[in-house]
Amino acid sequence: MFLYNACLIFFTVIFMEIVEKTAADIKNLRIQGATNIAVKALTAITDQIKSLNPKTIQEALSQLHKMKETLFQSRPTEPTMRTGVKYILYNLQRNLPDPVNISDVISSLASQYITLLKEAKARIQVIGANRIVDGMTIMTHCHSSIVSGIIIKAFQDGKKFDVVCTETRPLYQGHITARELSEKGVKTTLIVDSAMRWAVQQKEVDLILVGADAITSEGVVLNKIGTRLLALAAEEYNVPFYVATPSFKFSPETVIGNLEKIELRDPGEVWDSPPENLRIDNPAFETVARKYIHGIITELGILPPGYLYGAIVEKYPFIFSD
Amino acid sequence: MFLYNACLIFFTVIFMEIVEKTAADIKNLRIQGATNIAVKALTAITDQIKSLNPKTIQEALSQLHKMKETLFQSRPTEPTMRTGVKYILYNLQRNLPDPVNISDVISSLASQYITLLKEAKARIQVIGANRIVDGMTIMTHCHSSIVSGIIIKAFQDGKKFDVVCTETRPLYQGHITARELSEKGVKTTLIVDSAMRWAVQQKEVDLILVGADAITSEGVVLNKIGTRLLALAAEEYNVPFYVATPSFKFSPETVIGNLEKIELRDPGEVWDSPPENLRIDNPAFETVARKYIHGIITELGILPPGYLYGAIVEKYPFIFSD
Amino acid sequence: MFLYNACLIFFTVIFMEIVEKTAADIKNLRIQGATNIAVKALTAITDQIKSLNPKTIQEALSQLHKMKETLFQSRPTEPTMRTGVKYILYNLQRNLPDPVNISDVISSLASQYITLLKEAKARIQVIGANRIVDGMTIMTHCHSSIVSGIIIKAFQDGKKFDVVCTETRPLYQGHITARELSEKGVKTTLIVDSAMRWAVQQKEVDLILVGADAITSEGVVLNKIGTRLLALAAEEYNVPFYVATPSFKFSPETVIGNLEKIELRDPGEVWDSPPENLRIDNPAFETVARKYIHGIITELGILPPGYLYGAIVEKYPFIFSD
Amino acid sequence: MFLYNACLIFFTVIFMEIVEKTAADIKNLRIQGATNIAVKALTAITDQIKSLNPKTIQEALSQLHKMKETLFQSRPTEPTMRTGVKYILYNLQRNLPDPVNISDVISSLASQYITLLKEAKARIQVIGANRIVDGMTIMTHCHSSIVSGIIIKAFQDGKKFDVVCTETRPLYQGHITARELSEKGVKTTLIVDSAMRWAVQQKEVDLILVGADAITSEGVVLNKIGTRLLALAAEEYNVPFYVATPSFKFSPETVIGNLEKIELRDPGEVWDSPPENLRIDNPAFETVARKYIHGIITELGILPPGYLYGAIVEKYPFIFSD
Amino acid sequence: MFLYNACLIFFTVIFMEIVEKTAADIKNLRIQGATNIAVKALTAITDQIKSLNPKTIQEALSQLHKMKETLFQSRPTEPTMRTGVKYILYNLQRNLPDPVNISDVISSLASQYITLLKEAKARIQVIGANRIVDGMTIMTHCHSSIVSGIIIKAFQDGKKFDVVCTETRPLYQGHITARELSEKGVKTTLIVDSAMRWAVQQKEVDLILVGADAITSEGVVLNKIGTRLLALAAEEYNVPFYVATPSFKFSPETVIGNLEKIELRDPGEVWDSPPENLRIDNPAFETVARKYIHGIITELGILPPGYLYGAIVEKYPFIFSD
Amino acid sequence: MFLYNACLIFFTVIFMEIVEKTAADIKNLRIQGATNIAVKALTAITDQIKSLNPKTIQEALSQLHKMKETLFQSRPTEPTMRTGVKYILYNLQRNLPDPVNISDVISSLASQYITLLKEAKARIQVIGANRIVDGMTIMTHCHSSIVSGIIIKAFQDGKKFDVVCTETRPLYQGHITARELSEKGVKTTLIVDSAMRWAVQQKEVDLILVGADAITSEGVVLNKIGTRLLALAAEEYNVPFYVATPSFKFSPETVIGNLEKIELRDPGEVWDSPPENLRIDNPAFETVARKYIHGIITELGILPPGYLYGAIVEKYPFIFSD
Repeated sequence: MFLYNACLIFFTVIFMEIVEKTAADIKNLRIQGATNIAVKALTAITDQIKSLNPKTIQEALSQLHKMKETLFQSRPTEPTMRTGVKYILYNLQRNLPDPVNISDVISSLASQYITLLKEAKARIQVIGANRIVDGMTIMTHCHSSIVSGIIIKAFQDGKKFDVVCTETRPLYQGHITARELSEKGVKTTLIVDSAMRWAVQQKEVDLILVGADAITSEGVVLNKIGTRLLALAAEEYNVPFYVATPSFKFSPETVIGNLEKIELRDPGEVWDSPPENLRIDNPAFETVARKYIHGIITELGILPPGYLYGAIVEKYPFIFSD
Repeated sequence: MFLYNACLIFFTVIFMEIVEKTAADIKNLRIQGATNIAVKALTAITDQIKSLNPKTIQEALSQLHKMKETLFQSRPTEPTMRTGVKYILYNLQRNLPDPVNISDVISSLASQYITLLKEAKARIQVIGANRIVDGMTIMTHCHSSIVSGIIIKAFQDGKKFDVVCTETRPLYQGHITARELSEKGVKTTLIVDSAMRWAVQQKEVDLILVGADAITSEGVVLNKIGTRLLALAAEEYNVPFYVATPSFKFSPETVIGNLEKIELRDPGEVWDSPPENLRIDNPAFETVARKYIHGIITELGILPPGYLYGAIVEKYPFIFSD
Repeated sequence: MFLYNACLIFFTVIFMEIVEKTAADIKNLRIQGATNIAVKALTAITDQIKSLNPKTIQEALSQLHKMKETLFQSRPTEPTMRTGVKYILYNLQRNLPDPVNISDVISSLASQYITLLKEAKARIQVIGANRIVDGMTIMTHCHSSIVSGIIIKAFQDGKKFDVVCTETRPLYQGHITARELSEKGVKTTLIVDSAMRWAVQQKEVDLILVGADAITSEGVVLNKIGTRLLALAAEEYNVPFYVATPSFKFSPETVIGNLEKIELRDPGEVWDSPPENLRIDNPAFETVARKYIHGIITELGILPPGYLYGAIVEKYPFIFSD
Repeated sequence: MFLYNACLIFFTVIFMEIVEKTAADIKNLRIQGATNIAVKALTAITDQIKSLNPKTIQEALSQLHKMKETLFQSRPTEPTMRTGVKYILYNLQRNLPDPVNISDVISSLASQYITLLKEAKARIQVIGANRIVDGMTIMTHCHSSIVSGIIIKAFQDGKKFDVVCTETRPLYQGHITARELSEKGVKTTLIVDSAMRWAVQQKEVDLILVGADAITSEGVVLNKIGTRLLALAAEEYNVPFYVATPSFKFSPETVIGNLEKIELRDPGEVWDSPPENLRIDNPAFETVARKYIHGIITELGILPPGYLYGAIVEKYPFIFSD
Repeated sequence: MFLYNACLIFFTVIFMEIVEKTAADIKNLRIQGATNIAVKALTAITDQIKSLNPKTIQEALSQLHKMKETLFQSRPTEPTMRTGVKYILYNLQRNLPDPVNISDVISSLASQYITLLKEAKARIQVIGANRIVDGMTIMTHCHSSIVSGIIIKAFQDGKKFDVVCTETRPLYQGHITARELSEKGVKTTLIVDSAMRWAVQQKEVDLILVGADAITSEGVVLNKIGTRLLALAAEEYNVPFYVATPSFKFSPETVIGNLEKIELRDPGEVWDSPPENLRIDNPAFETVARKYIHGIITELGILPPGYLYGAIVEKYPFIFSD
Repeated sequence: MFLYNACLIFFTVIFMEIVEKTAADIKNLRIQGATNIAVKALTAITDQIKSLNPKTIQEALSQLHKMKETLFQSRPTEPTMRTGVKYILYNLQRNLPDPVNISDVISSLASQYITLLKEAKARIQVIGANRIVDGMTIMTHCHSSIVSGIIIKAFQDGKKFDVVCTETRPLYQGHITARELSEKGVKTTLIVDSAMRWAVQQKEVDLILVGADAITSEGVVLNKIGTRLLALAAEEYNVPFYVATPSFKFSPETVIGNLEKIELRDPGEVWDSPPENLRIDNPAFETVARKYIHGIITELGILPPGYLYGAIVEKYPFIFSD
């Protein structure tokens, strides 16, 4: 028994590397994008469980909890990935499989979650594209694969519309959006971030679509810095402001009062050779209050922000498991 | 007489070059900054009048009107310079000097106006610095020599405060502000433009100070793109929003219904190698409505935006002359 | 079998006329009022099924689907009727009856739905009347049998209050409301539509009650043109704005992103002999955003607009069936 | 002297009829339109003075004061006419003419005022037309000869734009606007009053232009019922809202705290055969608060509403005379 | 049987005194605080049932209904106590106990409810304390044991923050809060009620926490007079405004349209020797609309106000029982 | 000469006591009320000048400047008194009297200013009373002799209206208002300060009237703590909010950027025996922004707040003198 435990520790130490390496890649932004991060993290778990080859459910759970801790520490906010890890743990505990099948079951649960995610994104594209009608001007900020997906779906459905996107300093993710859409043939205009309000008015924007990094139990959305400014401009001209996101971006910690952390990133992203003594603050995200959000386009339909929590609390119990 | 007129045309053609060259330099941004443009334009007028050496007031006025036309066409909006040219014409017509003194009188009027401008700026620094109190966090956008002057005056008066400035894409004029202030020793933080609202809230901004490119008869202020966004963020947290500007930035054309033009600048400033088919809009300015402006800090004191026109309509009649 | 099918087609062609006639009557406004339309449509279905006398559930479902299509095309928005048709289909499919009873079962389901509707309206009258207290001035717009029902219930309960109603151009449905209420003895004042704000202020309105044509998943209410203007006036004086409607007015298509269509009606309703070249736009409805609505008075109680979808999504599954 | 006075009374009684008849015509709306009313009233004064043929300034002033009283009682609010009467009295008292010229001087003063008014209207057309640019959609309410004049001037200047006007119940003055503009060739759309907000949004209105019946010292504008509703809709979409009016519409009584009266007109205008016991309120005007008004287009230029009083207090002293 | 009934009446008369006395104590504010009132009322019921010693469930239910009526009449609004009484009745009816155990079962149900309440409060303290972060300034109004509990929990968790509280006229409940917190060592500042807005701005308040007396189905919160004023001040500076309360404060009567009554208390509390003829109004509570409330901190987590009803409608059916 | 100067110093030392004593009385609130303070201060100056009996204008001016300094230091904000002192200095310097008349001239100037003040107050009563119409409910805060004067004038003019006043903690100045009005027979209701919003809504307030302690060049009003809260409540129900004040309350220092100081008064006024370690903040005043103020009722008429500075800058040059 002692020997067994020692081996367990030994293997854990060795094989933990797969998950730890993935966590490090997430931390250093070598892996980006909420879905991509979730897929890579679940794949790492699956691979590592295969290597560790746990003999009992208890052993598997203990290993999974360690991996969970490692992955959760990689970024302050990453609900899609976190929910995926919880999905495996939740279902494993509720449907205790035969020990010989453990790694297969975990692998299968990981696949199920990834399928859930992909189906959610496909569904959101259909629902979001329904909202777009001929003649609209749509505005977005930063790059969101969900938002781009909706726009391209509507374009491929034959709808005629214009798009405005911001460059999104400091990392210019708006260039990705601009390139992606103009290459597909979508009529796209790019502006600097500070011209947001000008564009809402002068380009006669009809619809604003942004993604989400996290959503709280109160219906507050966390997204790329500048999103709230865009919401203020939308408010001034009463332009409908929609968030498009799988409901897996819900942050269950907020139910019990933990605020989402706003990451302050490397000042060098903003100015590589600043004057001495100048402080540079480089916040990654900001919050958008419930009152600015007309609706959240999710795989469950278009919801008012104050009901997202209500819509998932019974439907996705794994989100709320420990 | 015929000969004389021919000479006049000849000289005009030759010597007009001084003013035309200056107008071209203004157009191509080789000359920048409202006061600087005014000084250079009035100097050009003075120099050219000396060369042309008009023999009668009529001749001088005719020459001045041509120069005025040339200079006014250099940029859609440049009230400080335009008002300077009008200052000379207005006073010349009202106090017809002895013909032998014409060029001296014009030179003297040019100097008077430049002095007026400099005194105005000095006065605004004193008044603006009075508004700053210990412990404040002040926020600005873009670069304004008036705003920097106020901040540095307050700092030199021994006041303790923090400053937040934006980088101001696409031309990064915020870097000038950041460098100028941090070199003087002012505690300064720089953010990307889209973090404006974040900064207003998170840095607990107490006062916003921006410059102005033009002011309309209704009390609307025209300033660098992004200024209205900052006003929206200020509104959300009820932070006092002040514009600091000599009243010479008043745009008299707006009294009779002509809107200030919003210049669309070269897309290359925003992205030098954009994808094919992508449109880039690069507006230089935007308007800030009266309701967002707590006060305008002018050489005549701190005024509500709806009274700026009232304050100058009798005091500076030359602004309203043709 | 071939013969049978031929007969089936024959009978379908003949008897479809009942439903088709009803659909035409709905389209041409010979049948009006959400409940009335639902009752007539379900009666037509019942009658026609009796005539067609289907021999199998499959046959009945096929016939019902054709009728559904015909009825759904009669108007862009008519959720109460649509939900009734779905109610029959949903329950028929879930509780497959003995084929001999098909038409009885359909008839019974139609009756059940109509009873549900009537009970809902009665319940809303009770709940709505509870909200009315002595001394109030209540304001409404257009004609809604639900709103009139609430007001008359409160009046019959012995409450003392005043009512203000608009004339509701172009079809003067406000005259129906005015006549109905003043004939019952309710103290009623009628105004032109553009005097809405004047009335909210000058008549010291305490409560606004309007009906609904449809409600979206986001909690946006669609109602007679002018309703949003009334909401703006209510907002200015902070007067509670309530919508009274059975929850069957919920529009399930909006969950998946389909906007409710705003019908543009015949210009002749507005001006029968307009000048040449004058365009007349005659929109029938407009939307009222969630933020203007204090509560929705439904048969399930008074709900915040952002929770109506949540309240029915589990309770009335037939609303969400195809 | 007694005889003389008796004659005076006699003549006054007889000839007062001209002014009294005009006052009655104004009261019964046989004379309408602010300028027209002023012209008719001053003409009546001129004619009557000629008949009365006063022998002294005192006599003339006494007669004029009686006429003033008669005319002022004809309507609660009619600043353009009232100011005209004051103009004559003010100038007569300040430049006491030779008694033989009295009626000529009065006639000349009446002409001067009418000329002032006409020049003001012409100037407002020029200034207002400057504000209109190609591609705009302009919206108006009711009928205002000033607003129609601006629109037609801009159209004749070759500008391309659309106009939306309301029908303006109960008297359909919007039909006059619609006919006037569409006959000139202006692309015009008419809507019912309650579709105001719908039009502001759906027709993408860029500019709102309305007239004024009176303006208070605080900068509040009194205009046709429905104007404030339009202001609320404009506010929701941040559409600039302008009032076009000669500054002679200023109401000097408001300086000393007297509120403009809101006339309640004949209910029969709204519904000629209403049900028994139904009350009908038919307010003619409503107020628009300063905060909703971007600018007032006057003959003195475009002013912020809070400065109109400031602009005229020194310039037009007769407005403030008794 | 007659004798038995007579005895029943006799005993009811005698022993009803326990509940009646408690009801009187509640009415006269000798018993205060929502939880305390609930505990005392349920204890009174338990004691009285023991004395009455009912022989059948029917008898017990009849007695309980009488007590319920007595207790419900003691105050217009007291949802925590009312829900407790319903809890006993609801569970008794659903799990009919053996008659010999009736009083034990009732006693046990009373204990269960009190435990539910205590656990809810403990849970709210944990969740609320999570929301507090180092460096905050927190503001509250009146005295709420829930709010004080959250603040003390956060303080005991080692967090560093300041608190501002109002004195809360006329009964100075703010003194209780101030004393409680400063005795624990929390840095506390007290202000007069009318300095609320001053404090929100000048003390740079980051978070507002208030309790609740009742919550309606629309998400409107009823709390101590002055709470809505504080919400207005919070709105002006965009300071998050939270209500902390067990969900048992939900008022089920509001679902069916009954407004919560606003109690007008004794004028003598405000001024004991007022001048003759002066009227004094002393309202105890006021409502806070949904739009002002960022979240409601309940034992079920932090919820948007528009979802509180949704969160409890299935979970706590006893709240909605008669 | 030396002797003379020595005497001068001697007399100055002795007689300065009159002004110094008055300044001390102002500081310690033994003299209160803006007009009263001004009267007492000018009387002290007059008396002291009589005693000092200056022989030259220079001497008198030097003495006056010392008195000015003493008086100005008595309170941070007291524009009515300050303007009075300036009035004497300004006129003395511009109309140098014969030295033998100096003290008579100063005495006469003091009287003139006091007369100006009294006439201003009388005029404001007339103008303010004009704004009150039958059936109104008027609300006020704290005690202002100007506001009480307006209300009593309207009452004596026979108007029928109700008044609501707050108690105004901590010094209960609202009791003075309540007593003054109810003794005159005005129907008055008193509330606690935190019931302000409740009263605006429940008492259906039509007009709010408050006084002013100072007004800035931007049109911001400084008044008793709680005034801005009342403005917020007024805003929520769109109730006109008026400030009644002589224009002598204008604070000329604000033109050049000096903020009015907010006095923090003795904590003992709020709670005489507070718990240890409790901080009490007792601010005396707060600012009301321009946007909340419908009009300022001054002796010059009812003005928009953004034009008060414009109205006095030419008319009362002494306000702007040093």
